[in-house]
Amino acid sequence: MDVLIDQHCHSVLADDDVDLGRWATEAAHSTLDGQLGLALRRWCAPVLDLEPHAPLAVYAARRRELGAAEVNRRMLAAARLDTLLVDTGLDTPGLLPLAEFGRLAPVREVVRLEHVAERATGDWSEALYAATRDAVAVKSIAAYRCGLDLDPRRPTAGDVRRALAGHAGRLTDPVLVRHLLWLAVDLGLPIQLHTGFGDDDVPLARADPALLQPWLAAVEPSCVPVVLLHCYPFHRQAGWLAQVFGNVYADVGLTVGQLGTRATAVLGEFCELAPFDRLLFSTDAFGLAELYVVGAAQFRHSWRILVDGWLADGALSPADAAAIGTRVGADNARCLYGLGQSDPPPADMNE
Amino acid sequence: MDVLIDQHCHSVLADDDVDLGRWATEAAHSTLDGQLGLALRRWCAPVLDLEPHAPLAVYAARRRELGAAEVNRRMLAAARLDTLLVDTGLDTPGLLPLAEFGRLAPVREVVRLEHVAERATGDWSEALYAATRDAVAVKSIAAYRCGLDLDPRRPTAGDVRRALAGHAGRLTDPVLVRHLLWLAVDLGLPIQLHTGFGDDDVPLARADPALLQPWLAAVEPSCVPVVLLHCYPFHRQAGWLAQVFGNVYADVGLTVGQLGTRATAVLGEFCELAPFDRLLFSTDAFGLAELYVVGAAQFRHSWRILVDGWLADGALSPADAAAIGTRVGADNARCLYGLGQSDPPPADMNE
Amino acid sequence: MDVLIDQHCHSVLADDDVDLGRWATEAAHSTLDGQLGLALRRWCAPVLDLEPHAPLAVYAARRRELGAAEVNRRMLAAARLDTLLVDTGLDTPGLLPLAEFGRLAPVREVVRLEHVAERATGDWSEALYAATRDAVAVKSIAAYRCGLDLDPRRPTAGDVRRALAGHAGRLTDPVLVRHLLWLAVDLGLPIQLHTGFGDDDVPLARADPALLQPWLAAVEPSCVPVVLLHCYPFHRQAGWLAQVFGNVYADVGLTVGQLGTRATAVLGEFCELAPFDRLLFSTDAFGLAELYVVGAAQFRHSWRILVDGWLADGALSPADAAAIGTRVGADNARCLYGLGQSDPPPADMNE
Repeated sequence: MDVLIDQHCHSVLADDDVDLGRWATEAAHSTLDGQLGLALRRWCAPVLDLEPHAPLAVYAARRRELGAAEVNRRMLAAARLDTLLVDTGLDTPGLLPLAEFGRLAPVREVVRLEHVAERATGDWSEALYAATRDAVAVKSIAAYRCGLDLDPRRPTAGDVRRALAGHAGRLTDPVLVRHLLWLAVDLGLPIQLHTGFGDDDVPLARADPALLQPWLAAVEPSCVPVVLLHCYPFHRQAGWLAQVFGNVYADVGLTVGQLGTRATAVLGEFCELAPFDRLLFSTDAFGLAELYVVGAAQFRHSWRILVDGWLADGALSPADAAAIGTRVGADNARCLYGLGQSDPPPADMNE
Repeated sequence: MDVLIDQHCHSVLADDDVDLGRWATEAAHSTLDGQLGLALRRWCAPVLDLEPHAPLAVYAARRRELGAAEVNRRMLAAARLDTLLVDTGLDTPGLLPLAEFGRLAPVREVVRLEHVAERATGDWSEALYAATRDAVAVKSIAAYRCGLDLDPRRPTAGDVRRALAGHAGRLTDPVLVRHLLWLAVDLGLPIQLHTGFGDDDVPLARADPALLQPWLAAVEPSCVPVVLLHCYPFHRQAGWLAQVFGNVYADVGLTVGQLGTRATAVLGEFCELAPFDRLLFSTDAFGLAELYVVGAAQFRHSWRILVDGWLADGALSPADAAAIGTRVGADNARCLYGLGQSDPPPADMNE
Repeated sequence: MDVLIDQHCHSVLADDDVDLGRWATEAAHSTLDGQLGLALRRWCAPVLDLEPHAPLAVYAARRRELGAAEVNRRMLAAARLDTLLVDTGLDTPGLLPLAEFGRLAPVREVVRLEHVAERATGDWSEALYAATRDAVAVKSIAAYRCGLDLDPRRPTAGDVRRALAGHAGRLTDPVLVRHLLWLAVDLGLPIQLHTGFGDDDVPLARADPALLQPWLAAVEPSCVPVVLLHCYPFHRQAGWLAQVFGNVYADVGLTVGQLGTRATAVLGEFCELAPFDRLLFSTDAFGLAELYVVGAAQFRHSWRILVDGWLADGALSPADAAAIGTRVGADNARCLYGLGQSDPPPADMNE
């Protein structure tokens, strides 16, 4: 699986001195004391000329020595990503702007709906059309704002007017969140939706993608693709939604990137009901350049183990196995987002 | 595990030309691009004299060449099922009537409650008694009609009368669905209940069998057996219900049949809390004769791998392993539904 | 992993003649026909000088022959537990009082909140202070009493007064259950909370620890540790809560003890998002001395297989693997509950 398209990620930090633990997970406190820390030491230490599993203190010192620019350059090269679809909806200080990030790797933009609406001075619909002129997809964090157990119907103009009257600042009103989702359907671009785990302010029990089922059923006739991001620990529910709705996709990203060696088992669970043309790879990397490497290297490693197991079981032919990997890694995203073919990576990039 | 009793399935199509993808999954659109497609090509191609993993186009051509009668005959023979408990509550055109299907394999009837009630002209209770004269069980699709988070109490006569007054056509009123479930308890036959995944119109988040817990607690004193069908992705919840309620069973059917090589992992999860005398095999085959083969062959294969793993771990003795397999495959169903002993399959049927 | 601290268990029965099946699971009916029965025969038969997997009837006869005192002594010795944190909130007849139990193994007390409140004649806060003078933690069974989907806010004095006015006997009023939880926060001792599966009267769908998220967010600023007991089948949700909240821990206890050979797979799932300093071992043994052996032996066995798999995968160094095991088995609990160092177990205790 040489070619990987990262169908959902964020930009990288330019700071020379970053708190690895703070940035590595979505926790408010600093921690690398789990699978992600092990995976980072495994996959990233060699990129900085250290032995795999080098202690974190050694790793952090070497990182400072090299400086952010060199580390970012090395990590993005080591991740061997074909195209990165970058969610530009975060104003976190220190992140490289998209144009600068694009010098490190080929990027395309994913526009965050709530980010546009919260900054729009006039009509949201026009603001979205303007903001997405060069975008390949939009993204919603409705799960954070009001949960996914939302009324599936398009709100009426009156509903929206009344809700807007009381609205200021952060977009949390369920009517407005729904309104925005339906405007996204009108746009016609693929809609990426946060589902499952995330920061501590995502209400996990209300982020189960199965709660979206009525809305997905309402959207299906439009044929607008809906991508369920993250999904864990509801990835089996996501796989079923991808099976029964012709326009629903499931992304294995954040899950693979955060779970280290356990990603192999969970990837297997993703591959139960979901059709193989509806699974998408991403890193969901954010800030820390290491996360591109962890996401990509762990996915390549875990996918190979998983599929080798299927082959050993006699479940499919080698040709089927190769074709499925190519699709999940890149071709499904290429087709979904209308990305052109790109050059193959240089031959000396192994694995 | 030579003998398998298929404790929940449907009849088979008589058409010579079927859309394999449309019939293979419960999705409204056609897809064999997932584990089920791989499993079908693996297990069924040899039944049609093709190599395992033959391409679908080759497979479909060969199927048409042989014709439905021959394919159905070969598949049912290859599945090596002892007795089939057939849900007759679907009026899908093209399905063989039970009497004709019975020429292909030994069948017993499972009566669908909603099917009877929706066609009854008089008293439901009498209609159910009449309809189940030769049946071994009843089945409810309450999960589709109003979800499983239903009021556990038997509705009063007044509640039922009021609900019936507004009722016409499809049975979706929660009061009437509950009424029907309690009439089934009065009948005393085992009650099979759809839980977990299914067609796109089952509300997945409301099909968690754990939502049935209050009703199961209310039914337990009656000792009427309740069989939780499908269960996935809530099969661990189902296993716990089977552990704590003396009359609750869990069926591994649709799950094993749809998940291909992944069935092994999920079967293991079924076998965590559920007592071994409460697990039941089925294929949940519907329409496509291939689904009997996929369900049976994958179960035999996955069960053996699973239990060989337990043996290698030192978790049980070979005698225990054999006994558990026999019970899950056939004896639990034989005892639950009061089926008599049948002849052993011919000796030349291997595996 | 020589040293194990059992961070949640109960006392043992003194009766010579016990119904093994009745006591082994939390089911109201007797059953050893599942993974636990296999695990008991595997791990405990040798402790009574029988072959592993000896039939239950043989086992039960040998048990009666030896008598409870000898069986209890042998089992506690074979479990090789360093310290046992004993929930004393059950008045089940036949259980050894803590002082007597302490002659079999080093014990510390965990006080059950509802037990104290239901017996308090005056101010609950004072009663809790008095009852926990020698305790290392408190425990709540709010999941049984009103579910975990509770209002996260501390109830007002007026709310409590009104609720107390209507209260008698069993504590089920959500306002009083919340009041008690907040009094526990004031105490400052670690709070152990039942989550996930248990007896048939725990409402499983309302025992998902993710439902506690708003309360955990409200408690986090106090830094009072909260330990999510059992967790299964919501252990992935628990792992995420442990990742995002700095004061939340997940206990693998009852799950490992009840699942036999399947504990290996489920332990792996516990180790996905949870930081390694937030996972805690316990047996959750109750009544039957065998349950200490099953919990401890299965954990040692499953943990070693799990981590050997990670090592074979190249996911971590042997030094990391050893350190993580020591922490999950004992050091996390030692630190959390302020337990002192204890003597190492005698050298002749193998594995």
